[in-house]
Amino acid sequence: MIPQIVSAVGSVIGSEPIELHAPVLGAVEKQRLLEVLESGYVSSVGTEVRRFEEELAEYVGVKHAVATVNGTSALHAALLLAGVRPGDEVLLPALSFIATANAISYCGATPHFLDIEESSLGVDPAAMHDYLGSISRTSSGETCNRHTGRRIAAVVPVHTFGHMANVEGVVEVAGAHGLAVIEDSAEALGSHRSGKHAGTYGQLGVLSFNGNKIVTSGGGGALLTDDGVLADQARHLTATSRVAQGWEFIHDGIGFNYRMPGLNAALGSAQLTRIEDLVANKRRLYRAYAREFAERGVRGARLFKEPKGTRSNYWLQTILLDEADEVVRDELLDALNQAGWQARPAWKLLPEQPPYVACPSAPVPTAQAVVRRAINIPSGPGILV
Amino acid sequence: MIPQIVSAVGSVIGSEPIELHAPVLGAVEKQRLLEVLESGYVSSVGTEVRRFEEELAEYVGVKHAVATVNGTSALHAALLLAGVRPGDEVLLPALSFIATANAISYCGATPHFLDIEESSLGVDPAAMHDYLGSISRTSSGETCNRHTGRRIAAVVPVHTFGHMANVEGVVEVAGAHGLAVIEDSAEALGSHRSGKHAGTYGQLGVLSFNGNKIVTSGGGGALLTDDGVLADQARHLTATSRVAQGWEFIHDGIGFNYRMPGLNAALGSAQLTRIEDLVANKRRLYRAYAREFAERGVRGARLFKEPKGTRSNYWLQTILLDEADEVVRDELLDALNQAGWQARPAWKLLPEQPPYVACPSAPVPTAQAVVRRAINIPSGPGILV
Repeated sequence: MIPQIVSAVGSVIGSEPIELHAPVLGAVEKQRLLEVLESGYVSSVGTEVRRFEEELAEYVGVKHAVATVNGTSALHAALLLAGVRPGDEVLLPALSFIATANAISYCGATPHFLDIEESSLGVDPAAMHDYLGSISRTSSGETCNRHTGRRIAAVVPVHTFGHMANVEGVVEVAGAHGLAVIEDSAEALGSHRSGKHAGTYGQLGVLSFNGNKIVTSGGGGALLTDDGVLADQARHLTATSRVAQGWEFIHDGIGFNYRMPGLNAALGSAQLTRIEDLVANKRRLYRAYAREFAERGVRGARLFKEPKGTRSNYWLQTILLDEADEVVRDELLDALNQAGWQARPAWKLLPEQPPYVACPSAPVPTAQAVVRRAINIPSGPGILV
Repeated sequence: MIPQIVSAVGSVIGSEPIELHAPVLGAVEKQRLLEVLESGYVSSVGTEVRRFEEELAEYVGVKHAVATVNGTSALHAALLLAGVRPGDEVLLPALSFIATANAISYCGATPHFLDIEESSLGVDPAAMHDYLGSISRTSSGETCNRHTGRRIAAVVPVHTFGHMANVEGVVEVAGAHGLAVIEDSAEALGSHRSGKHAGTYGQLGVLSFNGNKIVTSGGGGALLTDDGVLADQARHLTATSRVAQGWEFIHDGIGFNYRMPGLNAALGSAQLTRIEDLVANKRRLYRAYAREFAERGVRGARLFKEPKGTRSNYWLQTILLDEADEVVRDELLDALNQAGWQARPAWKLLPEQPPYVACPSAPVPTAQAVVRRAINIPSGPGILV
């Protein structure tokens, strides 16, 4: 099985060493960087950041985008704007990058973990419903954890590896419990569910433009919202909460230095002109891997396929081993990396990370099973170009 | 007096509209941005960030520099590394940009304000000594605020407008009270006291490379330290506290996504090749303004001059009105801005900013007087080029 998989992967990506996710950068990026340099407006002052925000909002199909230094800062600001306060708990899937939990901690709140469903790799709404029924009580539109006495303020569904979580289901359960929904769409630029883009289901959504994302601004992130008041508040909070008052600036709250610089916005804006091609390339890469697996008759492992009713950007291509074959995970990781192709397991689960072991958690058997069985393989949008 | 000053300023900077501090960007910056684009390593992965850090450390004369997304994030990380904990108080001058106080708040600590001295615009060590004597008690190397019962953990001297604070004096008083010293040198790249660079006196120093600074990376900052353990901790804390463990990554604490991207490091590195010229240009600009003031026999106002025994980068050129003439401040601001030259008052004092009005504060008569009398005028390093 391992030689079969190695051969299948190699027949798609060739024999050269390759990283997990390298960006596609070229003439457009060069031109836009030289333009912003020429203008002198390399910091967040100037028109470059607004331009990127408008292009982003238009592509995503949302009224407002607010660009930030990275996805973590966007998530932190989104949680604050959604009303998360010190002492609250915030629900999130057990399987995500550490930043999802960290952003909750920055608010003085406690992460509270939920299980995922294998079909989407995102929060399982049915399990969330049952779990909340067993551990919380809801009255006057507020939900309280009966074991800790703390308010459960919000839920942060994550679109894992770019695949759409069942966010309609999550929104429904959240609505019944008075929870705010902040979509961690860091990995999901270009992904849709029922034609609606990731990050547009909750009150606020969050994107990332880190170097390993489908579109990169070097480092960067964004908040997405249809609510003009929230968008204004996001711009204010991420720009040190500054208000002009005659010649003086007052800061009417403890704000953050989270605005994206123009230099990074120019790169992001250039990258965004490629988005349709980048998504198409990544979807084509999935089909190529899947075809090679099928042609070789690989047994005991499959390529993870976008959930029904969704269109995924296939951010990270994922091999999912059968339960019976999960013991070969590390051997397969070795074989792929020794061939020069960067391959990684899924993140260690958040409730098993040292800062979060004592946090409340639902039983997370599916998340545990997926981590034992998942391997991400080279996924860059330039691989098949 | 106002027409005299307007005429003096105009004879230095010409009649065209001009911003307070525009960067000098050209061929070196262009080349380095194209190189980093070509390499593909626009995020914090890769060699670009380390290269910038090494160049920076060499220029400053410090063993380690750790590059971050901005000065605020560097200050936040530095305070945490210096041992500032929730419930502590941290001393800082009443006159600074809001970020100095905000970074203290992010640690869960309370800003506690000190007065400045007019000669340096920085913390007054003698006043600090007397004040600590009157409100605190020190035992077993720890100092406690007798009024609030809270530990005073650290002091953050600021090199205002690029001028060196009397940081030797501050270090001495801090030492006697067991306080950590974190130098906010955000504005002071290129400034020295007794030949020693800003940011190298305390346990940790902090720089900023915002678009309005002498050297810009679009957005960016750095921690400076001679302590290799602190430098390693800074790299760890600003990169999500991640540790490789076999195939897995564990995060052994609640870290931050504060590392500078390679794109920004490439710009910063290019800018740093110009540093000697930029400092020389800004010092020449001071002399040009001062000469014009002298030749016109301006009375009631002077250009602020670097403190004795220091060499300043003259980040922001500052007109200081005499006390008797402070009533004309806003009229002078109007006249300069109407001429098309961006001029600004000093920051509104931190203890007067809404989030900090209830914080402990020494009497700050000098800081109050300076704000009534100070105006920053165009200061860009390209003005006399």
